[in-house]
Amino acid sequence: MTATEQMLNEPMVAVNVGLAGFADPVRAAGAEVVSLDWRPPAEGDAELGWRLAGLVGDAEIDAANQRALERVQGTQPLWVDVRPAHEVISELGQNRLLLHAGPPIEWGSMCGPMKAAVVGAALLEGWAHTPDEAESLAARGDIDFAPCHDFDAVGPMAGIISASQPLMVVEDAASGSRSYSNLNEGRGRCLRYGALGDDVMTRLRWMGERLGPSLQAAVRSLPEPVNLKSVIAQALQMGDECHSRNVAASALLGRRLSAALAQRADLGGIEALEFLATNDYWFLNFSMAASKLAMMAGHGIARSTLVTTYARNGVEVGLRVSGTGDTWFTAPAPVVDGLYFPGYGPENANPDIGDSAITEVFGLGGFALAAAPAIVGFVGGSPRDAIRTTEEMASITVTRHRELQLPSLDFAGPPVGIDLRAVLDSGVRPTITTGIAHREPGIGQIGAGITRMPLACFVDALKAFPDSPKDKL
Amino acid sequence: MTATEQMLNEPMVAVNVGLAGFADPVRAAGAEVVSLDWRPPAEGDAELGWRLAGLVGDAEIDAANQRALERVQGTQPLWVDVRPAHEVISELGQNRLLLHAGPPIEWGSMCGPMKAAVVGAALLEGWAHTPDEAESLAARGDIDFAPCHDFDAVGPMAGIISASQPLMVVEDAASGSRSYSNLNEGRGRCLRYGALGDDVMTRLRWMGERLGPSLQAAVRSLPEPVNLKSVIAQALQMGDECHSRNVAASALLGRRLSAALAQRADLGGIEALEFLATNDYWFLNFSMAASKLAMMAGHGIARSTLVTTYARNGVEVGLRVSGTGDTWFTAPAPVVDGLYFPGYGPENANPDIGDSAITEVFGLGGFALAAAPAIVGFVGGSPRDAIRTTEEMASITVTRHRELQLPSLDFAGPPVGIDLRAVLDSGVRPTITTGIAHREPGIGQIGAGITRMPLACFVDALKAFPDSPKDKL
Repeated sequence: MTATEQMLNEPMVAVNVGLAGFADPVRAAGAEVVSLDWRPPAEGDAELGWRLAGLVGDAEIDAANQRALERVQGTQPLWVDVRPAHEVISELGQNRLLLHAGPPIEWGSMCGPMKAAVVGAALLEGWAHTPDEAESLAARGDIDFAPCHDFDAVGPMAGIISASQPLMVVEDAASGSRSYSNLNEGRGRCLRYGALGDDVMTRLRWMGERLGPSLQAAVRSLPEPVNLKSVIAQALQMGDECHSRNVAASALLGRRLSAALAQRADLGGIEALEFLATNDYWFLNFSMAASKLAMMAGHGIARSTLVTTYARNGVEVGLRVSGTGDTWFTAPAPVVDGLYFPGYGPENANPDIGDSAITEVFGLGGFALAAAPAIVGFVGGSPRDAIRTTEEMASITVTRHRELQLPSLDFAGPPVGIDLRAVLDSGVRPTITTGIAHREPGIGQIGAGITRMPLACFVDALKAFPDSPKDKL
Repeated sequence: MTATEQMLNEPMVAVNVGLAGFADPVRAAGAEVVSLDWRPPAEGDAELGWRLAGLVGDAEIDAANQRALERVQGTQPLWVDVRPAHEVISELGQNRLLLHAGPPIEWGSMCGPMKAAVVGAALLEGWAHTPDEAESLAARGDIDFAPCHDFDAVGPMAGIISASQPLMVVEDAASGSRSYSNLNEGRGRCLRYGALGDDVMTRLRWMGERLGPSLQAAVRSLPEPVNLKSVIAQALQMGDECHSRNVAASALLGRRLSAALAQRADLGGIEALEFLATNDYWFLNFSMAASKLAMMAGHGIARSTLVTTYARNGVEVGLRVSGTGDTWFTAPAPVVDGLYFPGYGPENANPDIGDSAITEVFGLGGFALAAAPAIVGFVGGSPRDAIRTTEEMASITVTRHRELQLPSLDFAGPPVGIDLRAVLDSGVRPTITTGIAHREPGIGQIGAGITRMPLACFVDALKAFPDSPKDKL
């Protein structure tokens, strides 16, 4: 049979571009229809579309992005220390300053769970003795607020970091640059989800007084620091995507420390081992700090359209791009599609919140979903959907991780390096796996699921992206 | 288009049964060819073929197998204790007795690595002071040998269990029946692979004097015993198939014990934590003991063709079937197709050895290969090959695990319960993932890979299977 004969023998296949309903009559006529999920580039804005067309395929931008990704992938994030926050971020020791997740926000605009976490932190620091006192303090402007990202730090969910909290210190082996995150409180009622109460405060105090010091002693006593990227590499082969699933990485990191912690029973090492034995989210904050460190290396490169930050404060999401510096491009935070704990539903959900999407910016989480098919179950999906999501993310990224592998994709690397141009050109919104907080202060986590970054902040970033030198000629 | 028109439009597809070469001319003519890997049932033995035909579809056998699998799957393997072998297997305390892997074998017939392990065990027990003395003792008949399986025990590779070795005790929650295994020595130079030397002996002594006692104290202090099946269930979602890959299960089990071990520094608990932190094979022996306990529950059921034991002594493999009692059906041990350490090749390899294939008999290892695509890399395969192997094994098993899941197969259970009839009817040989020992005594592991059970022992089991009561009428 010739190739032409073969073609003629094949059943008709139609390609549908536009509303899904267009396909129905064609399908009814017996033909197979492939519905293309096409959207006009640049959200259909003609002027922006022309601008985008000029940037897509710009060799200078391509080269800048490659350079940025070289630096991102070259980072080796070593966990070198645990220290009280005020020792590594001196501003925290000098003022009544709290760091929070996402782009800048003031007390009056904060969402419920973030307000609750602020109250908890004020109680923890002894600035107030009751939640009412803490709220008055904040309302009077007697507490300053700044994004964690302003201090090379990241915090999950509300992301409140205060002076006395123990922070992990993660250092790039080559450059010596450092990133920070607080320590994970575990599941259930946690400050980061906006839960408040004696149980939450007792755990936070224990973390400062016992967990932090014993971990500090343990990590300092290791013969060499743990390379967090090697833990991530192992965990991706073990069902974690290192954002919403961290059980393998938590267990692997835990056993690296176990003998060292056991030797510091005086400081709280045995209690720390008990805590680690049941905290399946323990590694999340390490994954975030490692991701932050890598993206810092790719930030601030002229003409690079690489997304280097995406973070949510529960009201707005904020985006930063390598070539546009420290400007935040914001949009309203979306609600998360997820699986809710019994008794809760989307009507109780706070919009998307937390710095943890830095993992997606680094090619983990939703971008590495193929590693963790268990997570798509949150939204009724299958392992095939997980693989499809990772492949879809590859259409908006610059490259694939060369040191990380996804077994279900024949050991290909997770896609990494969100290209502002590709997102706007394709309309494919980056996928995030995340937890869901109750919108009211004081309650905490009510579910987990999957969401997407809104396009509006990408549009604003494109508008602000500096003109090509060529255009100026 | 009607269904008939669609059929006519489809390109020709031929099915080839027999030698692969038959397909070439058909394929050259432009048709798609599916080569069916068909083999005559019962190895082409006509008389046996008729006998097999009588047993296939025998409702009484089907019912017996279902009953056996109910008991197998109903087992809840609780790790309840660690004790010196002579305390739980009293014969070990009364005689110079050593247990070994696989079907029965005497000193003169043993392979190199098993002889080396016997020498090591004789030194460990103080029966001899030099390897030469130990060999003479064995050659004179002054050491008795019996299969581990005779005492409800299992040992990986050479599988030598001696009086002073600490054994794990695994107990079925409902029936109270118990199985045993020794503790895993880790990777590298180990007695189970037939390595000998001061390093090997020092570790074995430490295991008896420090690891065993601290583990005993730790496991007894847990608020409730660890259900090993729940660890297996988690590990199958984390890249382990619980035979040749056990890193997730080892880390998960390790963290359950870490605080308890930390509290017994006096007994060696901190050394134990150091040992566990780097032993990625730690869970293998637990997986084996849990598998053994389950298969014991399915053994000895009249008219059941369920395979309940498959074990190798490095010279012969041995099979036992539920309905034929404790008779071993043996065949020569095959060489393993695998990845060799630098400097070694198949010519250095000892034939297949160890009781660890009990994990395959229980639906883990090669049967759960879809969980652990990293392993097929040993033999140049892909993740797709791993899935295909698990699906192939489903063609020779009675059912699928209902408490265990494989993410890459849409969370279907691993196939479990090898049916003697199905193996002989299809010619599909059960797949085993395994380590490879050097054939010379004293050297140790030289690789890892995949092998298959030989059909000859299945043929012998079929011949010995009792006639159906119907046939006797």
